[in-house]
Amino acid sequence: MPEQAPHSDEYWMQQALDLAKQAKGHVAPNPLVGCVIVSSDGKPVGQGYHKKFGEAHSEVNAVESVKDKKQLKDATVYVTLEPCSHQGKTPPCAPMLAKLPIKKVVIAMKDPNPDVDGKGILHLRNNGIEVEVGVLKKEAEKLNEFFIHHQTFGRPFITLKVAQTADGFIAAADGESQWITGDQSRKLVHKWRSEYDAVLVGRTTAMVDNPSLTVRHVSGRQPKRIVIDGPYELPKDLNLFSDKFEEKTTIITWNKEASATDADPMLKVMQQNYFRGEVLQVSKVDGHVDLRQSFKLLGEKGISSILVEGGQQLSSALIRQGLVDKLELFIAPKLLGAGTRSLINIGINKMKEIAELKEVSWTRVGDDILLTGYF
Amino acid sequence: MPEQAPHSDEYWMQQALDLAKQAKGHVAPNPLVGCVIVSSDGKPVGQGYHKKFGEAHSEVNAVESVKDKKQLKDATVYVTLEPCSHQGKTPPCAPMLAKLPIKKVVIAMKDPNPDVDGKGILHLRNNGIEVEVGVLKKEAEKLNEFFIHHQTFGRPFITLKVAQTADGFIAAADGESQWITGDQSRKLVHKWRSEYDAVLVGRTTAMVDNPSLTVRHVSGRQPKRIVIDGPYELPKDLNLFSDKFEEKTTIITWNKEASATDADPMLKVMQQNYFRGEVLQVSKVDGHVDLRQSFKLLGEKGISSILVEGGQQLSSALIRQGLVDKLELFIAPKLLGAGTRSLINIGINKMKEIAELKEVSWTRVGDDILLTGYF
Repeated sequence: MPEQAPHSDEYWMQQALDLAKQAKGHVAPNPLVGCVIVSSDGKPVGQGYHKKFGEAHSEVNAVESVKDKKQLKDATVYVTLEPCSHQGKTPPCAPMLAKLPIKKVVIAMKDPNPDVDGKGILHLRNNGIEVEVGVLKKEAEKLNEFFIHHQTFGRPFITLKVAQTADGFIAAADGESQWITGDQSRKLVHKWRSEYDAVLVGRTTAMVDNPSLTVRHVSGRQPKRIVIDGPYELPKDLNLFSDKFEEKTTIITWNKEASATDADPMLKVMQQNYFRGEVLQVSKVDGHVDLRQSFKLLGEKGISSILVEGGQQLSSALIRQGLVDKLELFIAPKLLGAGTRSLINIGINKMKEIAELKEVSWTRVGDDILLTGYF
Repeated sequence: MPEQAPHSDEYWMQQALDLAKQAKGHVAPNPLVGCVIVSSDGKPVGQGYHKKFGEAHSEVNAVESVKDKKQLKDATVYVTLEPCSHQGKTPPCAPMLAKLPIKKVVIAMKDPNPDVDGKGILHLRNNGIEVEVGVLKKEAEKLNEFFIHHQTFGRPFITLKVAQTADGFIAAADGESQWITGDQSRKLVHKWRSEYDAVLVGRTTAMVDNPSLTVRHVSGRQPKRIVIDGPYELPKDLNLFSDKFEEKTTIITWNKEASATDADPMLKVMQQNYFRGEVLQVSKVDGHVDLRQSFKLLGEKGISSILVEGGQQLSSALIRQGLVDKLELFIAPKLLGAGTRSLINIGINKMKEIAELKEVSWTRVGDDILLTGYF
């Protein structure tokens, strides 16, 4: 066999990124991290990824997977995120790597966590290990957009999902909204649910559609469910408050009596209003819950990503307040001409103020098209 | 060189279809037709297409292109439409082919023109020529969708073009509509203008945008321009009535006095209301021009295809009345949340009545997506 040219750094980093992805939905608020170890003669000898929050980091898994530890001599370690330097739930990875006889560590991106932020790289270099940073940086940043956003702003990354007709309607004039988009689009939403920390709906959607917001049609873990109920009046026999995932539901309300009522569960049982989930009380702004404050509080509780499956009011309010980071807009090749529009009043009055999405992609999903873009 | 397997019938028919396409915009109300002649040893020896209305048919051009007429012996003729059997502006093609020493004629589709409709095929067979019909039939029907529609219904094929934001707006709240879609989308519309027999706009669009509906940014011939002006009140200094293509403009009106006024051009000159184009007077239905009658009259005048670049009112009325055959909907990755919606009231009140487009395709055009579908 002819001798092959050695694979590029990008090739190995892509392997590490692919490994990292497998843990989507299981590591938050930690980042997704993958690691590949390549021997001095260019062969992959170890690999690993961070599988679950609280468990071993990718570097530890990768090193442990190396069968013959002699192969670590002068090896190169490819890791999608800067190895940590601080003691967390597990021992720090940079000192662990620094003790190995490896030659080089190739890193896709620095860790924005203020506890790390370059300290891992410094530790490796101080211990005589060559370090290269920035290989497939953009791809690594995209992979960990939730984590980076949460670390940087303290708020969760907010994705707004909308499913509409080609002419911009999410429900017909008779109020019916099922189903505008096709099976494959709906299946994709279920997959996303399993990857986001939480799913969020507004009061009207909860009331009218009585959604369960569970992960069906695909296998994956159930996210938290957040419902905005300013006055705290939604009936507690809705699916969100009464099915087997009841404890995964959080109600956000401005009603100060909500927690007081919760303090007397016996009374609530009598009122058929008992609810085992969480209630988050926030300020009232212009008659509605303070969304920015809500996200700040959720961020503090470790929620790093939210998929909003809101109706017209919530979707429009979030865009108007500049709180949406990413839009996932499904468009079906169908027309209604009347009914409930997907968006109303997002604060734009002139053509020159038009909201142009960034990093746009159009993906065909069954008969529908999916527009993905950033604000 | 190793001996090659002979090309398939589909291969040669595709060549013929590709030839036919080159005449888009120049043969209407005739069909687009291409022809390839393949010698008995499988080599292409002649080709031609119908280049311009009134000029030679594709079969004649193909036969004339054969340098050594001996190559016609036992040759196969591939033609995208049944050769004609009737004397039109040029002599009939089936008898011309029947006199040649060819072996076989392969035809993509029968000619729906009642003057032909199988008679060409019959003539060939009666003269001992093998005939095969239906190779790339679907592709041939798509290529001549204007011609087939015009032949079948007597009305032009109507394509509605709309350019909107992702949330379904064609203008911002300040009335501004330029530009929602990108350069490449607009350029594609200019190409279409050169391929349709006529471009149609409504009264409001003519008034507000004062469009010239000319072919710019691409080379191609200028289509007729049709503007609906029920009361016949649009000022004649609009581009459509005063630029160098003035004579290519047709006004459709229900105002019975329109033609009367036209009868006295001197008076009109004095009124600064002189117009050298055509005026089509039709019935008034529900306060508006009778669109179905308008299309019937235009069809009788040989207009086989119309590209509607209407605003909200005209687009919605056409869909509501079931007069749109094809939708070309450009969607830009932008949001407005308010302004003029692309469609209102297309006669759908319930989800189960939703208009599902057929033969849907989604094509990326620059940053925009183009939804193409049939009603």
